[in-house]
Amino acid sequence: MDEFMEMAMEEARKGLAEGGIPIGSVLVRQGKVIGRGHNRRVQAGDPMAHAEIDCLRNAGRTGSYRDTVLYSTLMPCYLCSGAVVQFGIPKVIVAESETFPGGPEFMRQHGVEVVDLHLPEAVQMMTDFIAARPELWNEDIGK
Amino acid sequence: MDEFMEMAMEEARKGLAEGGIPIGSVLVRQGKVIGRGHNRRVQAGDPMAHAEIDCLRNAGRTGSYRDTVLYSTLMPCYLCSGAVVQFGIPKVIVAESETFPGGPEFMRQHGVEVVDLHLPEAVQMMTDFIAARPELWNEDIGK
Repeated sequence: MDEFMEMAMEEARKGLAEGGIPIGSVLVRQGKVIGRGHNRRVQAGDPMAHAEIDCLRNAGRTGSYRDTVLYSTLMPCYLCSGAVVQFGIPKVIVAESETFPGGPEFMRQHGVEVVDLHLPEAVQMMTDFIAARPELWNEDIGK
Repeated sequence: MDEFMEMAMEEARKGLAEGGIPIGSVLVRQGKVIGRGHNRRVQAGDPMAHAEIDCLRNAGRTGSYRDTVLYSTLMPCYLCSGAVVQFGIPKVIVAESETFPGGPEFMRQHGVEVVDLHLPEAVQMMTDFIAARPELWNEDIGK
């Protein structure tokens, strides 16, 4: 697996071990990780702490995003797709979109390249989590 | 002025007094404020802390947003519009959209009612800020 997606998967597993929602994200600039994070809704009581938002927050005020790539273990929802579009992140690589469709069409309409790796282990992790904690998952996506 | 928009303006002025970007937001459920916040990019070094995100974070895990109204002193950008759409906030009231167009069409496409109050004092506050700190404003909207 791509080393950056492996890091995003590690973040997701870290979140799961903390009792949270297993989604992880990594921001890369020219081959270097400049931010990483995971969903912290449960851990921080913060409904805005989706993995991608946590990752971008941890990257801090890093200047232009024009030379960055955002990795996520799951297709970004509209909140996170909105961040990608607003801040001009040109490329998003996701592990899967089978368990949640997210907002790829919105990102693509705004010129973002969206790559879906269709990784079975990522699908399995989310499938298991959604089966175990459906109420928490629905809360996280506003259902 | 609407009492909730007045609170959002207070939040914006608080942010300005802290050396930050003067945008404020308030979340209301059935006539009661359940969250308020302001842009904290500068204060917290957090590029995700747009006013609406800060407000929604402060409201915490508050259950369904179906009976809420989000107030903002400025038309939400795509990050914040994405939060509105993803979490199913049905109505957004903004003080102005003259100094920044934001993403009203995206929200409306997803069934959100967007009301623009066109308040001159909000336009003036942002106009003055953008003239004084153009680099900070451009950073905040990813330009």
